Amino acid sequence: MACCRGCFCCQCCCREGETRTPEELVRAAGVQAVKSLDYDRCINEPYVEVLEGLDNKKARKYEAVRWVMVFVIGVTVGLLGLFVDFFVHLFTKIKFSVVADSIEKCTDRGCLSLSLLELLTFNMLFVFIASLLVLIEPVAAGSGIPEIKSYLNGVKIPGIVRLRTFLCKAAGVLFSVAGGLFVGKEGPMIHSGAIVGAGLPQFQSITFRRIKFDFPYFRSDRDKRDFVSAGAAAGVAAAFGAPIGGTLFSLEEGSSFWNQALTWKVLFCSMSATFTLNFFRSGINFNKWGSFQLPGLLNFGEFKCSDGDKKCHLWTAVDLGFFVLMGVVGGLLGALFNCMNKCLAKYRMRHIHPKARFIRVLESLLVAMVTTLVIFLASVLLGECRDLSSPTTHNSTTAFCWQVSGSEDINSTIRQFFCSNKSYNDMATLLFNPQEAAIHQLFHQDGTFSPATLSIFFLLYFLLACWTYGVSVPSGLFVPSLLCGAAFGRLVANILKVELGLHIYSGTFALIGAAAFLGGVVRMTISLTVILIESTNEITYGLPIMITLMVAKWTGDFFNKGIYDIHIQLKGVPLLEWETEVEMDKLTASDIMEPNLTYVYPHTRVQSLVSILRTTVYHAFPVVTENRQNERDFMKGNILISNNIRFKKSNIVSRAAEQRRRCQSMKSYPSSELRNVCDDQSAAAEPAEEGEDLLQQMLERR
Amino acid sequence: MACCRGCFCCQCCCREGETRTPEELVRAAGVQAVKSLDYDRCINEPYVEVLEGLDNKKARKYEAVRWVMVFVIGVTVGLLGLFVDFFVHLFTKIKFSVVADSIEKCTDRGCLSLSLLELLTFNMLFVFIASLLVLIEPVAAGSGIPEIKSYLNGVKIPGIVRLRTFLCKAAGVLFSVAGGLFVGKEGPMIHSGAIVGAGLPQFQSITFRRIKFDFPYFRSDRDKRDFVSAGAAAGVAAAFGAPIGGTLFSLEEGSSFWNQALTWKVLFCSMSATFTLNFFRSGINFNKWGSFQLPGLLNFGEFKCSDGDKKCHLWTAVDLGFFVLMGVVGGLLGALFNCMNKCLAKYRMRHIHPKARFIRVLESLLVAMVTTLVIFLASVLLGECRDLSSPTTHNSTTAFCWQVSGSEDINSTIRQFFCSNKSYNDMATLLFNPQEAAIHQLFHQDGTFSPATLSIFFLLYFLLACWTYGVSVPSGLFVPSLLCGAAFGRLVANILKVELGLHIYSGTFALIGAAAFLGGVVRMTISLTVILIESTNEITYGLPIMITLMVAKWTGDFFNKGIYDIHIQLKGVPLLEWETEVEMDKLTASDIMEPNLTYVYPHTRVQSLVSILRTTVYHAFPVVTENRQNERDFMKGNILISNNIRFKKSNIVSRAAEQRRRCQSMKSYPSSELRNVCDDQSAAAEPAEEGEDLLQQMLERR
Repeated sequence: MACCRGCFCCQCCCREGETRTPEELVRAAGVQAVKSLDYDRCINEPYVEVLEGLDNKKARKYEAVRWVMVFVIGVTVGLLGLFVDFFVHLFTKIKFSVVADSIEKCTDRGCLSLSLLELLTFNMLFVFIASLLVLIEPVAAGSGIPEIKSYLNGVKIPGIVRLRTFLCKAAGVLFSVAGGLFVGKEGPMIHSGAIVGAGLPQFQSITFRRIKFDFPYFRSDRDKRDFVSAGAAAGVAAAFGAPIGGTLFSLEEGSSFWNQALTWKVLFCSMSATFTLNFFRSGINFNKWGSFQLPGLLNFGEFKCSDGDKKCHLWTAVDLGFFVLMGVVGGLLGALFNCMNKCLAKYRMRHIHPKARFIRVLESLLVAMVTTLVIFLASVLLGECRDLSSPTTHNSTTAFCWQVSGSEDINSTIRQFFCSNKSYNDMATLLFNPQEAAIHQLFHQDGTFSPATLSIFFLLYFLLACWTYGVSVPSGLFVPSLLCGAAFGRLVANILKVELGLHIYSGTFALIGAAAFLGGVVRMTISLTVILIESTNEITYGLPIMITLMVAKWTGDFFNKGIYDIHIQLKGVPLLEWETEVEMDKLTASDIMEPNLTYVYPHTRVQSLVSILRTTVYHAFPVVTENRQNERDFMKGNILISNNIRFKKSNIVSRAAEQRRRCQSMKSYPSSELRNVCDDQSAAAEPAEEGEDLLQQMLERR
Repeated sequence: MACCRGCFCCQCCCREGETRTPEELVRAAGVQAVKSLDYDRCINEPYVEVLEGLDNKKARKYEAVRWVMVFVIGVTVGLLGLFVDFFVHLFTKIKFSVVADSIEKCTDRGCLSLSLLELLTFNMLFVFIASLLVLIEPVAAGSGIPEIKSYLNGVKIPGIVRLRTFLCKAAGVLFSVAGGLFVGKEGPMIHSGAIVGAGLPQFQSITFRRIKFDFPYFRSDRDKRDFVSAGAAAGVAAAFGAPIGGTLFSLEEGSSFWNQALTWKVLFCSMSATFTLNFFRSGINFNKWGSFQLPGLLNFGEFKCSDGDKKCHLWTAVDLGFFVLMGVVGGLLGALFNCMNKCLAKYRMRHIHPKARFIRVLESLLVAMVTTLVIFLASVLLGECRDLSSPTTHNSTTAFCWQVSGSEDINSTIRQFFCSNKSYNDMATLLFNPQEAAIHQLFHQDGTFSPATLSIFFLLYFLLACWTYGVSVPSGLFVPSLLCGAAFGRLVANILKVELGLHIYSGTFALIGAAAFLGGVVRMTISLTVILIESTNEITYGLPIMITLMVAKWTGDFFNKGIYDIHIQLKGVPLLEWETEVEMDKLTASDIMEPNLTYVYPHTRVQSLVSILRTTVYHAFPVVTENRQNERDFMKGNILISNNIRFKKSNIVSRAAEQRRRCQSMKSYPSSELRNVCDDQSAAAEPAEEGEDLLQQMLERR
């Protein structure tokens, strides 16, 4: 009988012509299974009760706990950065030393293919691991910035701040960077930081249910958002050594309300992260414990004129004109990059994502293989030997100055590949190094790179980075963009210096090129300006960086959106933009509201609920009474399926089902809620057990 | 008859026992004649009409005009900074060269009193001019930061953003700084910047009515606030060479809503100001047009270890402990400073402000005289001769490095006053110099200052700066606080270095001392951190500065508020704080509302209005109908006396009076509004002309 009814219900629904599952509906509507977060303080009776119980002493205690929490978050993110940095360095070092040994030996014997094979093995192994980690937790793919942007905007994508995501992301990015892919670790650092921020103050984990302390504070969406802001800011701060930029990043991407106290905490959190990382890195790398010399994972080194050159300026007013032009070109290139990446992402969504998951792993491996081949072949075949600017032109004191000021010696990372002693292979120097070293080379190498090398490098990097962003490994976009742009900037500097004979500082042009391209791709404004200023540690670069970013953004905005916004759009997340179109201002509520509302009554049959859940994609339903005369009584509130219907289910549906089960087996109930069930009278009609299961499945699928 | 009625009305009011004038009422209520600004967008019919007329093209045009405006504001503020800086330098140079000549001549002949007399004449003349300018426009006194903070908070103090205020402030600060007072020019720069921001986009002036272009945009309070934010930020940016700090200052003090687009504009404005100033100063002072080497009016020079000293660190983890202690002491000293200044300000309000205005000028002159005497006598009598750290210990390349990196040679500003050749008079070096030079000395002088000198200097400066802030001249507080704190920090460094033999960098301690004291006085958080970081151009100082400021603020907050908040409170401005007390959260609207409302009917007699205006201090009155049954009809809206009653007046009161006058003289009416008067039928009763005048007077007095 019960079964029969259940079958009937099911068939009934099917017979109504509705054959699409909720997933299909969701996909058809272009909306991911997202929930909106509740950032406004909701003044209701329970909240008022909590308020009543608060006094100044308690409030101060909460405040103190908050400060401790942001400090702990900052330190944790700093340590995380240290962990990632340490292992990336270690793996990269092992890889390059083995391969370089092999090349040295093989140069004479002509067995370069063996070296290539070794490099391929390393890279593909690393990328395979990274890709496997993403298989475990698919939201760990990519940079995570679109997801965090969505979260701070008030849209929750499931699983985005889980501990499992954190583990997969942090370990994954380590392997994808070590695997030689053209990806950065900055985006994933920001995502990981945000997860730390969301998770630590909860003192419990959904992934590992054993982790559960009795600390029931900061459970509201509002509190969580504040900590996520702090965590994300700490991530930026640790990645770039830019605490102020991190704070502004959180503000730019997230908070609609500027809150002095919150911002102060976020800045403190960022500072904690930066200086934790700084402290340990200075200690471990330089063995100078207690001094603070290595601010972020990525820093741009010190821009300064060589002491002997009196005429040298980092930049002059005349250069600003070139910077504006470079901004335009950067914007155009960025728009092209975004356009290509969007097409690729769409292609992936249509043809790769629906297929079996290991296809994604294969794609990652393919990218790794191509990247490795490109790196190796370009280094060996396309490089030119350039003369090293001999250190003897500087006097010894200058060289000494360099080391005291904390910069690494730029010549330690050149690659000589088949070149004579006082020269270096320019392509290999750029490709056969960690990306940070390549950026340093482009910014600070006094020697030259041939225009052909720079052009080829730019082209290869542009195409491969575009392909790579979206592959299912954790991957950031900052460093590849910077490197790509720096090559472009250096190319411009080459042309101006050699062809036109202008007296300019190449490093500045490389920096501005990097800013222009990065700005054209990500279209961030304030925070990116400040991040770049802080990374250069040179306040006088403020104006050129800002102007370049402005021009790049405006140019790019003619064509398409920033890469993060594109990916948010592709994910179907309903993001609220900062700026509204003028037309939107003219709309009133009635213009955008749904005229045919799906509603439920206070007493609704499970069958109707199932049917509603089947046929709609909404997450909340108004509960109305039948008394439509009285306006106040008509609307009884609205129901969120996640909370209220589940509640209802356990109360009525489960109650009925459990009672029946109980009569059969007389088991005791583990849940305290259910333990009271039998004491109540079962007033509700007994729905079918299958109906219950169906409902539960549908709820869980959302 | 008309006269009679008027007299009766007047007597009637008097007879009702109300003898206090509105000014007295206002003073009794402790409220200045302030108005609240309307920062929320008011969606009413005219606004909807404006919206209807907007399209994307027009909106983009407005946006473009906004960008141009913020650029123009930035450039103007930069030029203003240049102007102030140039003349301060000029006057100071003339003064010191004349006096120094005199001292040189007099040292032998023993006529030092003549030199003193010269210095006194200069200083008192300058201060007299500054004081006169403040007599013209009293709100030009002080730093102006409390007023701007109030404005951005939504409270308008009359005259605060007028052109007259601007002229008096900009010229006044020049003379008060040149007059040797212990005041800074940074606060007034911020105020002046805010006025530029408020004024420029209006294209008209109330002070000079001839200035009037036909550009009727940006008239709403909201738009004005945005431009004032930008202007104030530009002021900070120009003063400290800190564009990011300026932006954050505007955010911290003003905006409750973080708006990405606005912040981006504010940052652009700040950058424009900084680099305009930078461009011209580098050109004028260094004759290097097109290079950018002198960021702000106040910058702290380059902190770096001398190249020979390998063990030297700017700061280490161990020093952080001392910085925390210094933060505590700074907070205590700041609280003491604020407490003393508050008492002084109260004394002034009670005993000086009610008296004739020239008394204020006398006080300024007294302060100038005492300051001059202290400077002169302390320099001559209390200084010690200290050995110069000889430049031969550095090799020549290092000295060369210094100049290339843009720092001024620190030894160019020492004073030798009666000391032998290779030594200098430490007290005179600190006192007989512009304050910026003294700060540089404390931050960068390798030579020592004796503990006695530093203590006396600190004490003198503390007391005199406290007395000076509040005297009726334009006066900032940043530089004196920094100098005072730097002396304290240098004293700590002396003790640690000499007594305990620790290996520390004195300059860092001086900087931290300055931050601690300034933080204790002004209690700013984020923006001050960023301003100081930018002024030092050294990102690694972020952590110590932040920690020091945090500790100083928390310590100080135990005792009293920040100096600006104290002055806002004394002015009776109802400022909305960021943080609410817990008790406030529990209040509901009914707890704070006035139960006995003063209201008006749609048709109210002038007599009643006059009586209401006489007996209350409110600025707005609800208009109610007599139909109390229907809730919707009961409240008809509320009236702002400035707008609606004035409107009413011109409609009814003036209409009646004008009609009578017209019958007498048959003049034509200049106002278009009144030109239509005669065509309407005069339905209103004819109030007395005196009644009208009375009303007008009262309205104008508010």
